[in-house]
Amino acid sequence: MKRESAGTVPEGASRSAGIVETKYMTIAEPPQALKLESGESIGPVTLAYETYGTLDPDRSNAILVLHALSGDAHAAGCHQGEEAPGWWDAMIGPGKPFDTDRYFVICSNVIGGCKGSTGPSSTDPQTGKPYALEFPFVTIADMVNAQRRLIDLMEIDRLLCVAGGSMGGMQALQWVASYPERVRSAIPIATALKHSPQQIAFNEVSRQSIMADPAWRNGNYYGIGQPERGLAVARMIGHITFMSDQSMEEKFSRRLKKERFSFNFDANFEVEGYLHYRGANFVKRFDANSYLYITKAMDYFDLSGGRLINDRKVDTRFLVISFKSDWLYPAYQSQEIVRQLKQKQIDATYCELKSTYGHDAFLVELEGQTTLIHHFLEKTYRGERNGNGYRR
Amino acid sequence: MKRESAGTVPEGASRSAGIVETKYMTIAEPPQALKLESGESIGPVTLAYETYGTLDPDRSNAILVLHALSGDAHAAGCHQGEEAPGWWDAMIGPGKPFDTDRYFVICSNVIGGCKGSTGPSSTDPQTGKPYALEFPFVTIADMVNAQRRLIDLMEIDRLLCVAGGSMGGMQALQWVASYPERVRSAIPIATALKHSPQQIAFNEVSRQSIMADPAWRNGNYYGIGQPERGLAVARMIGHITFMSDQSMEEKFSRRLKKERFSFNFDANFEVEGYLHYRGANFVKRFDANSYLYITKAMDYFDLSGGRLINDRKVDTRFLVISFKSDWLYPAYQSQEIVRQLKQKQIDATYCELKSTYGHDAFLVELEGQTTLIHHFLEKTYRGERNGNGYRR
Repeated sequence: MKRESAGTVPEGASRSAGIVETKYMTIAEPPQALKLESGESIGPVTLAYETYGTLDPDRSNAILVLHALSGDAHAAGCHQGEEAPGWWDAMIGPGKPFDTDRYFVICSNVIGGCKGSTGPSSTDPQTGKPYALEFPFVTIADMVNAQRRLIDLMEIDRLLCVAGGSMGGMQALQWVASYPERVRSAIPIATALKHSPQQIAFNEVSRQSIMADPAWRNGNYYGIGQPERGLAVARMIGHITFMSDQSMEEKFSRRLKKERFSFNFDANFEVEGYLHYRGANFVKRFDANSYLYITKAMDYFDLSGGRLINDRKVDTRFLVISFKSDWLYPAYQSQEIVRQLKQKQIDATYCELKSTYGHDAFLVELEGQTTLIHHFLEKTYRGERNGNGYRR
Repeated sequence: MKRESAGTVPEGASRSAGIVETKYMTIAEPPQALKLESGESIGPVTLAYETYGTLDPDRSNAILVLHALSGDAHAAGCHQGEEAPGWWDAMIGPGKPFDTDRYFVICSNVIGGCKGSTGPSSTDPQTGKPYALEFPFVTIADMVNAQRRLIDLMEIDRLLCVAGGSMGGMQALQWVASYPERVRSAIPIATALKHSPQQIAFNEVSRQSIMADPAWRNGNYYGIGQPERGLAVARMIGHITFMSDQSMEEKFSRRLKKERFSFNFDANFEVEGYLHYRGANFVKRFDANSYLYITKAMDYFDLSGGRLINDRKVDTRFLVISFKSDWLYPAYQSQEIVRQLKQKQIDATYCELKSTYGHDAFLVELEGQTTLIHHFLEKTYRGERNGNGYRR
């Protein structure tokens, strides 16, 4: 994308969030430790995050964006010296749906992860060694509690919006469940109130693949080398579930890597080569133990049965988005979110977008999302500025 | 099921095929070796098979039943001293759709397998050691060629029917492609003319899981112990794809193994325990190298583009069956088989059966299949007996 200065940008054009850097918040104020759902505590806790745009003087334009399983705080713009933009760069920036000319966008990483926040690969202050499996079990609610400390630190009373896809959507839902008074609106995308047994099963097979690798060493592999082969297989399973039958057909069909089929167990088909490539890349950037902890947090997550909206005074507005070809987080799961909201008279808009990209659609199917999110945020923002809360 | 003698069975009741045993055919006649599609040869070749019912004097009532990836020759009845019946016992026996009071049913294993037929775990006569990866690459057409030698040995000129689900359906299709004059009718169930990239991807991840296990030792694990952990993960992946989202919800939902969720990486949910159980059981009965060879044969299989019916004189009748919730072999793949048949003016009936069982439906969804197959076979049989070939 051509970079232009603000003055010469034609109306409607979108630009990059520019050069950004990841920041870190460590809970320094008492209580320094974070009390977890399991009953255990952990501390000190560091959270990696990025921000784009400027916080209004009245601190009313903050949007919290949340990432999926293997994502990180780097959602938009570019890091100095790097070419690849953040994972949701198409959606966040000046003139983009999460318009940084208007909104102050925060993207927060999660505890349990390996992207700058406290997780199993962090040093346990009690032992001076990485936590490994001594790291306590964390839930989506624990992740959100840590993020709340970040929002407290920024002195933001109420977020204009929390938004995210997949596990990011779970966090958005959890924000409403835990702190409804602090969330003006929410955009859960391609997500669910709880994992189905099929979703749990795919995660469990991925975990089994990691733990079956002798290099996993019961989690104590730091300084030796992580279980790359098991983690790569786990990621390959993931990638199949992120795509759709149709998108794989369009992308690979039965094309061969070489001109003729080779009678051996190498990657003969392009789709095999793609999976190998994805698996090999992933192990360079993600910690196997974090994969175990985070997938378990997703499986444990359950806001069904009235747990999403347990306070009748909730006035959070919702935009719920699903994608037609997403079979990992099927549309019926988003519809169930909407059903729960409507039962509690919550203002909710639902849209099932056409897409062949499967679950990946929340990252790559831009057009439909752009329009929906742009208008939803604008209406929420205007409502917030025109009075104490949103007016229809 | 209550066992009764033929005389007292009420009309329509079905009984077991009784005590059966697996037999073995070794290609002893020249050419002893089987020429393979890859250009290599293999010999001697042994094929495990079972038969149920009696071959007519005119040898016109033989039906060949073919099994899926991990199946074996034991399709019906019980082995002496064993309680579990064969894998398609509900479909094969006196009074059952494959009625052994009327038909002579043969179930043949495949080369490349590990259930009594020559495969990578068999002894290489040249070295006196197991073939391991020295075993040549085999295709579905090679499997069918070996089966043709068995049918030759039985002096059966023409099979009344070839039938099977999943990879069994591929073999049935390949029989028609390779030897149309020897197949009066075919029943391919829950199968495809070729694997989609998604199907290849699931197989490839399974293979990668096996080959990632250090116990695989590049295939040379015989006498030491096979790569159980990698093979178990491969099988768990398989089981997810054999079920449907709905059938998993009905079978497991989010039920826990214990009363409360445990904050650890054991199997907490019932669905996890089920997958562990299936994985652990599978490694006791199946050879990892066979899993590699057979899945590769399935991925290589491709009868699209006119390769199914390449001879205009084919008069094989078809009954093509798919299942609504089968997302591993979706209905559109069966519809593509039917489209290819109709284009060549082949007599084909297609039925998409309602079922929530996913791909497993071909094994467990009995009612719909029973009626369809019963009538289809009866019509084929009557047609065959009323003249030289079937009359409409």
